[in-house]
Amino acid sequence: MADGSDKEVVVRNKQVIFKDYITGFPKESDMHVTTGNIKLKVPAGTKALLVKNLYLSCDPYMRILMRSQGSDLFSPYTPGSPITGFGVAKVLDSGHPDFKEGDLVWGTTGWEEYSLLTATEGLFKIQHTEVPLSYYTGILGMPGITAYAGFYEVCSPKKGEYVFVSAASGAVGQLVGQFAKLMGCYVVGSAGSKEKVELLKNKFGFDDAFNYKEEPDLNAALKRYFPEGIDIYFENVGGKMLDAVLLNMRIHGRIAVCGMISQYNLDQPEGVHNLMTIVYKTVRIEGFSVFDYYPQYSKFLDHVLAYIKDGKIKYVEDLAEGLESGPAALIGLFSGRNVGKQVVVVDHRL
Amino acid sequence: MADGSDKEVVVRNKQVIFKDYITGFPKESDMHVTTGNIKLKVPAGTKALLVKNLYLSCDPYMRILMRSQGSDLFSPYTPGSPITGFGVAKVLDSGHPDFKEGDLVWGTTGWEEYSLLTATEGLFKIQHTEVPLSYYTGILGMPGITAYAGFYEVCSPKKGEYVFVSAASGAVGQLVGQFAKLMGCYVVGSAGSKEKVELLKNKFGFDDAFNYKEEPDLNAALKRYFPEGIDIYFENVGGKMLDAVLLNMRIHGRIAVCGMISQYNLDQPEGVHNLMTIVYKTVRIEGFSVFDYYPQYSKFLDHVLAYIKDGKIKYVEDLAEGLESGPAALIGLFSGRNVGKQVVVVDHRL
Repeated sequence: MADGSDKEVVVRNKQVIFKDYITGFPKESDMHVTTGNIKLKVPAGTKALLVKNLYLSCDPYMRILMRSQGSDLFSPYTPGSPITGFGVAKVLDSGHPDFKEGDLVWGTTGWEEYSLLTATEGLFKIQHTEVPLSYYTGILGMPGITAYAGFYEVCSPKKGEYVFVSAASGAVGQLVGQFAKLMGCYVVGSAGSKEKVELLKNKFGFDDAFNYKEEPDLNAALKRYFPEGIDIYFENVGGKMLDAVLLNMRIHGRIAVCGMISQYNLDQPEGVHNLMTIVYKTVRIEGFSVFDYYPQYSKFLDHVLAYIKDGKIKYVEDLAEGLESGPAALIGLFSGRNVGKQVVVVDHRL
Repeated sequence: MADGSDKEVVVRNKQVIFKDYITGFPKESDMHVTTGNIKLKVPAGTKALLVKNLYLSCDPYMRILMRSQGSDLFSPYTPGSPITGFGVAKVLDSGHPDFKEGDLVWGTTGWEEYSLLTATEGLFKIQHTEVPLSYYTGILGMPGITAYAGFYEVCSPKKGEYVFVSAASGAVGQLVGQFAKLMGCYVVGSAGSKEKVELLKNKFGFDDAFNYKEEPDLNAALKRYFPEGIDIYFENVGGKMLDAVLLNMRIHGRIAVCGMISQYNLDQPEGVHNLMTIVYKTVRIEGFSVFDYYPQYSKFLDHVLAYIKDGKIKYVEDLAEGLESGPAALIGLFSGRNVGKQVVVVDHRL
């Protein structure tokens, strides 16, 4: 309690520390695991929360925060401090009137066992616990509302349209593909292994899927899967894939740019040559920020929870056990090692 | 009259013929001027129009029609037939109930003295003749509604925003800049000569303007003119300019892609490297087709006619006299020889 009780429990706090800004592919050694101490109590007079972290989310945007240059949306990590990211946590002490001890929350937290959270605006209280709590790092959290807003709002989909999703077995992609199928679209996904391609076809119900690593000519591959062209491209990778997709867009096509994971580790981003398609086919390419859609969270949650309960949406996550496994799990995103949503389990126990 | 009168006047008809599909920069010799004959009468039983062409419009998209590959929006020219394009014409004979002898129209016509028009859907009757008729190839025609729709609809502008227009002294650019000023935006334009830069600043009232040919580092130039960044980019050129603009976009910025004239003559379009901005700044890049906005034509016309009459919008056109001057005038677009909207005058006399 933040009310001045004199209980002051100090505990050991394992942390994943960000070493320094990087270029190129991130490595496990760009982070290190250390142990500090933390007081399990909110400083008196603040509106902070003291939380116990349960599940941490590995998301591609985190690579962007490892660059020294920030932007309006992306503040770089602080060298020597813990990595931050989305996670599920339990409130141990609260100075904020909206939260109390025992509440479960999801939002931005630290890669550590316990965090003192001073920025509480982006935290959501978890009301539905009949699903695994880890889902709030994915299908019911930031990636979920990203998929929801990106598909329904940015892509303006219509029944019967041709939809292509890259990085389709990832946290966002698997959902986008299923939303599109539920809407009556024809959906093809790309992924980076045979196993993932099978998952897309057999578990998530994509109409078709291919392994981009086995396609020397992406343009030819897309022409094979979309002889009529592509109405909607849900963009997660950028670079060569985007260039090939542009050659296959239909008139009035839409490209929702969720991310460009293939470009995050390059010093010089690849050149995209086929932007004339924007003119030839009146295509819209639109970036979006999930934060702009946070006001729709409860609508989203009702929509997706119902689908989960009815078994109409499947969800696959890849759980790495223990904070120590965090760096490898995060790095694994960029080689596509994860199968499904990559989560780091700090503690399964509430 | 198409009613079976037996008057059958056959006249000589000068034409600009498209020779064959090209790559690279178009040359005057890709067209030739010839003289055929034409009957000044609509074939009985058709809904065609027989028109006398007065003014022809030179527009960058015409280069796209000189490529052998078409697209949904752009059907290639037919080698051996006259160039087609937008123009102002007078109806000499009509088989269509909506048009009668003496009507003035604008829309797609042939590069020739007289044309038999069988596709009448895209023709607009000219009601306001208190402005020069040539204006219906520009400010009151296709480029006008392009600027109107591109700026007001695609760019979603707000007062006080920072607006950049490339090819800003052209038919579309000069209007976009003035619309933006009238809305209370800060507007900078780029053009390819000192004379055009002066025109932008002194005639069209842009806040500032620069000659892109004198800027070895476009990114640095844009940072000088937009220290706060760019909210809206009205894209007419593509390539290196787009790449530099992307580095200077503000969050939630919008890029309306009207054209990419710098790319039309290249066998291999330039690579654009800075598309990560779409993610970093949640930018929207949107192509659009003026045809989708034709239903708004009369609203547009009222809007712009009022501005013209009040002297609030200036308009500069570059008139080339005679059909023979057509090929040079059209080619001149791609080296920026024209100052203002390039028009070919077939005949000033009604």
